[in-house]
Parts: sequence; structure tokens; C-alpha cells
Amino acid sequence: MKQKITIKTIAKELGVSTSTVSKALKDSHEISKETKDKIQAYANLYNYKPNSLALQLRNQKTKVIGVILPKIVHHFFSTVIMGIEEGAIEKGYHIMVCFSNESYAKEVETLKVLSNGSVDGLIVSIANETLKNKDYKHFTDLVSEEIPLVLFDRVVDDILCDKVVVDDVGAGYKATKHLLDNGRKKIALITTPKHVNVGTLRRQGYEKALIEEYIKTNNNLIIEIDENLDVRKQIEPVFNLDIDGVFAVNEIYAANAIRIAKEKGLKVPEDFSVIGFTDGLISEYSSPSITTIAQHGFTMGKQSVELLIERIEKESEVYSPKKIVISSDLKLRESTKPSS
Amino acid sequence: MKQKITIKTIAKELGVSTSTVSKALKDSHEISKETKDKIQAYANLYNYKPNSLALQLRNQKTKVIGVILPKIVHHFFSTVIMGIEEGAIEKGYHIMVCFSNESYAKEVETLKVLSNGSVDGLIVSIANETLKNKDYKHFTDLVSEEIPLVLFDRVVDDILCDKVVVDDVGAGYKATKHLLDNGRKKIALITTPKHVNVGTLRRQGYEKALIEEYIKTNNNLIIEIDENLDVRKQIEPVFNLDIDGVFAVNEIYAANAIRIAKEKGLKVPEDFSVIGFTDGLISEYSSPSITTIAQHGFTMGKQSVELLIERIEKESEVYSPKKIVISSDLKLRESTKPSS
Repeated sequence: MKQKITIKTIAKELGVSTSTVSKALKDSHEISKETKDKIQAYANLYNYKPNSLALQLRNQKTKVIGVILPKIVHHFFSTVIMGIEEGAIEKGYHIMVCFSNESYAKEVETLKVLSNGSVDGLIVSIANETLKNKDYKHFTDLVSEEIPLVLFDRVVDDILCDKVVVDDVGAGYKATKHLLDNGRKKIALITTPKHVNVGTLRRQGYEKALIEEYIKTNNNLIIEIDENLDVRKQIEPVFNLDIDGVFAVNEIYAANAIRIAKEKGLKVPEDFSVIGFTDGLISEYSSPSITTIAQHGFTMGKQSVELLIERIEKESEVYSPKKIVISSDLKLRESTKPSS
Repeated sequence: MKQKITIKTIAKELGVSTSTVSKALKDSHEISKETKDKIQAYANLYNYKPNSLALQLRNQKTKVIGVILPKIVHHFFSTVIMGIEEGAIEKGYHIMVCFSNESYAKEVETLKVLSNGSVDGLIVSIANETLKNKDYKHFTDLVSEEIPLVLFDRVVDDILCDKVVVDDVGAGYKATKHLLDNGRKKIALITTPKHVNVGTLRRQGYEKALIEEYIKTNNNLIIEIDENLDVRKQIEPVFNLDIDGVFAVNEIYAANAIRIAKEKGLKVPEDFSVIGFTDGLISEYSSPSITTIAQHGFTMGKQSVELLIERIEKESEVYSPKKIVISSDLKLRESTKPSS
């Protein structure tokens, strides 16, 4: 397939800014005749066709930001929306939220609906199925059409755009280190399947913390949850092994681990420690309440929208995608304490 | 202010359908010359001006439904979204969700953004502040512009449109009756301020159940929570009175009541019963888990979207708003049992 020529390519080739190219192609009086002639000639030579979608998006500002989330019921994503909302309101933008329901097809469709001119830019966390398929064309098309896009939390290197992520390796390390510091040595990890990058990164942190204490990773203690099946039933078997703690990569897994531990007669936190991830209402109202890694969803949302609006409002000379890494914090509650 | 004449008024006055009026005004060949002349003359006489927004919405179908919710983090609303999503997908529609954050100004703004032609119709649950102000002009304007609108859960009689509600009186009655059947007699009610209609209706159900048992309502046992203040601190004082059970109109109030009861040394459910509302994750993972009134948010969302799509797709001869009442169910868990 012939490479499509974009405003960006022309700008790069001729050593001018994208906004100069854009204005020259619109025959703007702000640009000198000499520059306009050069740019227009180049565009004609390479058969440049303005992408009407992109043009529409660039010219007709809607002051609306589209957000696509993988899940509807999920405390972390709710806090991200709150952060996006706050940042958007501050700059006079509205947000519209759509859901991919972890489905590749739904994500492709939703991107299409939102990018038909009704939004100025998009903030997305990628669907599970898309990560599994590794098919990112719907995103790379957006990027080549120069539609402002920020990915957060679930991101991939293949898509060249702005990104906001949690330091998941660091967070996994912090959680595991906390259990080790409390005297736990046989720590089970309840995580996601490998194609979910955040799970994989938190696992790296888990392994790193174990290695530092000269503990070899025991793969039997690592449970990868398939969310299409019963979560509890997948967690139960690891309690038949010799374990003294659990690090769960979300609060639902952690709450289930506490229930099972209690049913097995284990005292949490006296005999057994549980640490979760995502500081939501379950962690707060579970009994005992759950020590977690707080992911700062609010900050993540706010930073994502600020990055996006910057990209929408300033046509930068050279586009170099930014990546913001947000660190996480340990939130101590009742489900962990030093072993006696 | 002069009454604005609409297609509906013309249709009613001339005894024809709204679609006949609409077609006649567009000079459609489907309508006889005689009828067209009559309608056009009437429209000219009363200075009918087609509302461009309404026309745009009616003519250019986007296959997108706008949803405005009062809160971001709320399990009930999340389940409603899931129902709306499922119903929308079945009929080939997409949904876009926006949030009023319980603010009147944000609700007005968001209605404006969504009804600028980007959606075919709207599903809304009214913001707290709007209910307090009793200013519904932004909704009645939509209705007079013939933009399809369905209100759910938080609705008011002043807005003539389709509605989907829970039988809140019945639900409040069911919850209180369950506590009475379990031998509780001194039941505190933890509810919303009076302007939130669902709280007021649930309170009617509470009082109805008490009256049936010849128990006089004690206003000291009724706590109206102001969500801008600390919830727990507002619930605590009622525990200094002589009570043996709590009916809370949402699961966060219920979870707080259980915590306080446990801290006061009361055994739940042996000495003290708690029943909540909204069957969310907190009710499931709280310890003891919480008996609740399940509101069937999913069904509510699905019925709302089906009603809306029917309204979008069929221009009915005479518009008579529908009201669907969904009954709720008791979901038994650990926080209630017959007193010993």
C-alpha cells in the first residue's frame, strides 16, 4: 500500500511547522507567498488529500472530549473519569464516556462514532480483547489522521501517542515488599492473564521483591484469573498450598481471598496477610478493611485530560509523544500487619 | 410569553398526525394538495417556525443515545448503564454517557451539548440540585422541541415525557416489613433529604409498614443525610437512642450503620438488623454481607432505552407519555435474621 502523505510528512520534509503547512494549504494570508507556493507544489506533487475527518475535527472545535473505557462497573475507572471531568471543566470542555466492554469490535465501532466530528480528541484505555489480538490499526489510523489521542493505564508501545501510566512494576514491588517486611514469605499472586500488560508489570514487581529477599518465584503460587469464569473458584485451590499471604492485583480478587482465608479458619491479619490493588469502596468496607496500592486514578484522569487539551489547543512544531508515569502509594488498613 | 406553536399543536388542531404535518411542511408528495394547503396556511397564520435543532435531530439520525447521570461512582447507575448498553446494542445504537455531578448548571450545559445534533434522544436521571431548585425548564424545552426523552429513577411530574421508575413506596415497605417480621420494632431510617423524591417515597413505605403494625413513626429515628457532610458522623447519634434495626436507603449508609453497630458491641444480625438498598459490591463484600432491596438497575436501563428507541423510530399519531414501574426484590444476606 502506498504511504499516505500527511500534513506532518510535508512539514517534516520542508522543515516547517505543521500549522504552517495547514495554513498554507488553506491559502492563509498569514503565510508568505513563497512558502505557500513551495508547500502547495509539494502537496500536489505527492497527491496530498486533506483527510476530511481530520480537517473537520481540527477546524470545528466541539469543546467535547470523548472517553472510551473497557468496563462500566469498576472503581478505578470511575475515579479516572472524575479526574478527567475536573480537568475538562477547568478548561471549559465537556466529556462523553463510551464503553468498549473489553470487546475489540465494540472498541473499533465506538472510536468510529466518537471521531465522526463530535469530539476534539480522545482518551482511551484499551480493551482486553484488543490487547489479546494485538490489532491496533483503529488507533494507528487515528494517530496518522492527527486526531489527538491519549492512552492511559492499558497502553501499548505500537501506538505512537501521548500516554499516562501507573508505575506498575514499582507498585507490584511495593505491595510484595510490604508483605515481606511483615514477615510473610510464602506469598501467592492473584493476577490477570499475561496479555493484560498491567498484570504482567505488577508480576515483574512481585518477582523483583522476592529476588531481593533470595526467594525463588514458585509458579504454583501465581494464579492468572480468567474473568469469564468464576473468580472465587479459581482462587480457592491456592489455599490448599502452604501460603501465608496474598498479593491480589485488584480489590475484588483481594476481597475474595479474605473471604476464603476466613472460611479456612485463618485469622487475617494475625495469621495471614492480604494486600490488594485499587483503593475502592470494597477495600474500605470489606471486613477486615483491605490494605491496598492506591493507583491515583483521579490524578491519572486529570493528567490525561490536561495532556490531551494541550495537544488539541497547541499545534506543536514537532510532534513528540509524551509519557507520564504516575507513582502509586501504599494505603495501610486492617488486612496486613507484622506477623507475630 | 407567547406560546410557541409546534408540529404537535398543528396536528392536534387540524386532527391529523404529526408526521402528516411534518411531511406537509416539507411539501412531501405523499400528502394531498388539499391537506398540504390547509396545514401550510395554518402554520403561516400562527407563524410556525420549524425548530432547527429539533429538525436536525429528527432528520439526521445519528444512532447514538445520550445518557446523563447524576453521579460517576455509584453501583446502581452502573447497572443501569449496562442495561441501556445491552438494549442499545440490540437495536444497533451506541450510547454516550455524561455526568451532571448533581449540579443544576452542569445538567443544563450537558443537555445543551448532547442535544446539538449528536444524539437521537436522551435518557436522564435528574440531578439533586435541580430537584431542590424545582427548575425544569431545560427539560420542558426539550420536550416541546419534540426531542425524545426518557427520565428514570429520579423523575418529576412536571416534565411530560416517558418515565421508568422503581416502586419506591413498595420497596420501602418491603424493607421495613422484613425487619418487623424479624421481630425488630425500633427501626431507624437513614434516608436522603426530602427534595430527593426516591428517599421521600421510600420513607412513605417505611411509615406504611410501621402503621400496619400500630407503631407510631418517631421522627427522632429518621436521619436525613446531607452528602456534603461526613456520612458516618450523621449516622452515629441515632445509635445513642434505643433502636434494634436500621433501614438505609443505600448501601453506603447501610455499611456505615453495620460498622457503627459493631463498634458499639452490637452483634449483627443476632442483636441488631440492617437492611440496605441497591445490591452492589459493598453489600456483597461487607462483613456481614448486607440484606438489600435489589433495584433491578439493569432492567430499568433496558426498559428505558427500549422506550426511547420506540419513541425515536415511531412517530406516533398522538403522543401520550408512558410510565413504567419496576418492582423491586428483597435479597436476603447475613445482616438480617429473625431475632432470638
